Amino acid sequence: MSQKNALYSQSGGVTAVINATACGVIQTANAHDEIATVYAARNGILGALREELIDTSLEDPADIAALMHTPGGGFGSCRYKLKSLEENKAEYERLIEVFKAHDIGYFFYNGGGDSSDTAFKVSQIGDALGYHVNCVGIPKTIDNDLPVTDTCPGFGSVAKYVAVSMMEASLDVESMAETSTKVFVMEVMGRHAGWIAAAGGLAGRNHDEPPQIILFPEVAFDQEAFLARVKESVENYGYCSIVVSEGVKWPDGRFLSDAGTRDAFGHAQLGGCAPVIANMVKENLGYKYHWAVLDYLQRSARHLASQTDLDQAYAVGKAAVEYAVAGKNSVMPVIERLADKPYEWRISEAQLGDMANVEKMMPEDFITDDGFGITEACRTYLEPLIQGEAYPPYKDGLPQYVRMKNQLADKVLPAFEK
Amino acid sequence: MSQKNALYSQSGGVTAVINATACGVIQTANAHDEIATVYAARNGILGALREELIDTSLEDPADIAALMHTPGGGFGSCRYKLKSLEENKAEYERLIEVFKAHDIGYFFYNGGGDSSDTAFKVSQIGDALGYHVNCVGIPKTIDNDLPVTDTCPGFGSVAKYVAVSMMEASLDVESMAETSTKVFVMEVMGRHAGWIAAAGGLAGRNHDEPPQIILFPEVAFDQEAFLARVKESVENYGYCSIVVSEGVKWPDGRFLSDAGTRDAFGHAQLGGCAPVIANMVKENLGYKYHWAVLDYLQRSARHLASQTDLDQAYAVGKAAVEYAVAGKNSVMPVIERLADKPYEWRISEAQLGDMANVEKMMPEDFITDDGFGITEACRTYLEPLIQGEAYPPYKDGLPQYVRMKNQLADKVLPAFEK
Repeated sequence: MSQKNALYSQSGGVTAVINATACGVIQTANAHDEIATVYAARNGILGALREELIDTSLEDPADIAALMHTPGGGFGSCRYKLKSLEENKAEYERLIEVFKAHDIGYFFYNGGGDSSDTAFKVSQIGDALGYHVNCVGIPKTIDNDLPVTDTCPGFGSVAKYVAVSMMEASLDVESMAETSTKVFVMEVMGRHAGWIAAAGGLAGRNHDEPPQIILFPEVAFDQEAFLARVKESVENYGYCSIVVSEGVKWPDGRFLSDAGTRDAFGHAQLGGCAPVIANMVKENLGYKYHWAVLDYLQRSARHLASQTDLDQAYAVGKAAVEYAVAGKNSVMPVIERLADKPYEWRISEAQLGDMANVEKMMPEDFITDDGFGITEACRTYLEPLIQGEAYPPYKDGLPQYVRMKNQLADKVLPAFEK
Repeated sequence: MSQKNALYSQSGGVTAVINATACGVIQTANAHDEIATVYAARNGILGALREELIDTSLEDPADIAALMHTPGGGFGSCRYKLKSLEENKAEYERLIEVFKAHDIGYFFYNGGGDSSDTAFKVSQIGDALGYHVNCVGIPKTIDNDLPVTDTCPGFGSVAKYVAVSMMEASLDVESMAETSTKVFVMEVMGRHAGWIAAAGGLAGRNHDEPPQIILFPEVAFDQEAFLARVKESVENYGYCSIVVSEGVKWPDGRFLSDAGTRDAFGHAQLGGCAPVIANMVKENLGYKYHWAVLDYLQRSARHLASQTDLDQAYAVGKAAVEYAVAGKNSVMPVIERLADKPYEWRISEAQLGDMANVEKMMPEDFITDDGFGITEACRTYLEPLIQGEAYPPYKDGLPQYVRMKNQLADKVLPAFEK
């Protein structure tokens, strides 16, 4: 059997479980004779262009296994989108050159929408340049906005963290609301799609349970209706818990977070719609408020990962290798839902060409008519994704997250000038 | 044996484990023949003044047990400090009246510094008014600022959450720093003392581990030294993680969070030193940043409670009842450290008079000379407090937090006009 090496690359924002996918790729590749060495690109596709290839065979197998419970990107990632073939063919040619120099027969690109596009292009260019490589995309994004797949590895764990955080903070607020904070605002990620905000809705089911209000990027912000709902909630339940997506916009399309705020020196103050919302409540209704911004905590909270998400993250890595050694090119393993409750899923094969540059938004029937909550259809979709608790091992009170050695293979090519 | 009833009241900000103390009080009281019914004041001392006494004997014992894993305040709490005896003797007289009307022989007041003071006054006034009640304070505060006790129940769990969150977010930032965020700022509670900020320091040990900078309320903010340290960290390690206490002040004593910020309409914008710090970095060094504000999440994160903290929270509740039935008055069970490693502790008895109105600040030798980190002495103190993971039970992917029935005993007194 002729052996080839494999190259795995992480791309874009990392997640609590992207390293589990890396583990799935590496362990599965190591078990296949068709694959000799598995390299990982240092800091994503930039490392591939620069010929900075981490030799994963130099890592302790126990450390590779520990990727299962370690958040962040073990080999580094980057925000770098390859230009189109027309604009910068040299980048694609360089990739193929690096593949050729290191006998890479299998390329695994683990990312979101942009990465599917890149992987698709790479899958096409190899043959055109006379060097065939089996190119397999692997889904990952906390934004949950990839098409075809039932969900995206990384999202289920964010969803669980956001729902649990909302439950917990609301118990706190509720128990003290009479004399203290009456309105709590929690800001979550999701600039274009409200999937993460929707997950906050899992914290409660009825109006008297939190969150009483969810603000989605899909729904133009209606200040009057919002304030009326806050007032109603405080009057009826004593408090109001709010999940707000960072992507919420005014009816004219401006982001709420772009409040034109300036500090004492006249400098523009960036970021945060939670404080904007909280101030609006204070100015108009006079309620005492608190606000939290989860930011990176939500996508790195491996301490509270969803077991379902973790299983799927590993499974797509494993399937990607199986597809590649079976000779497949330009495909992506995706998650197919077979049943809602109990949740049944399997990995199935999608074409990269169908995945590239399509954003999956929340269906309209996932948001309640008033625009402030999630429907039963949305719950039915979300609930399976947060099932199971996958805790990391702890030592001395802290999780035992692993750090890779990340030793590079010798370079054989001249440096790449981009 | 003559039986008396007991009254338990939560006070001030709640924690991830204050309900474990409630559980310790109720279960221990139920096991003692000296105590008939255990009442809990609805929403803290206000409920006692209003004669709103929750009859805990009407709760399912399984629900009382579930308080062990439920954050927030199960019977409600409040921010309400009784005035001095001279200023408002009527409030103290009313309390004694309520005690008398409901045959309360044991009063347990579970709170921080102010509550110790109140409990102390109540312990003195009963006899003066001819109605003896055994009054026992029980420590609780995430601020960890009570004197005498080794630590305060509630703090260890916040410390663990803050340290783990810092570890996780920093792994995320580090893996993407080359092309994305280089500076991450995480804001934690602690307006007067830097105990919680210090706990963030447990995430790493050396300069190349996060957090590279901690900003304490105890150390006047030195912008120049701070920016130099940020630059050095980004240049040496590729990124810089910062823990900032909400209580950080300029050398002239103003809070950094009081930035004089105004929104587009000229309204004062309140809160958040994380965005202030982040903007300062951007303006002066040009680095891309992200920031998070933990707010209530840190004190309600029961999903990641410290087992040590939980054990201590239960133990002080249990000891309080044992003191009371042994005839003690005006005392507080506190935690005494017997050894650092392995941590050994026991409950010992303190006098409420020694606890009232004393704030325990961080010792000077707990902060490094440069003002940006914690010393080995501080680590030795903090490490035992985050040991062990006390997870709540989950169902359908979410923690099974309990909600009390909170049924009130019949009132027998006229309403109290405060």
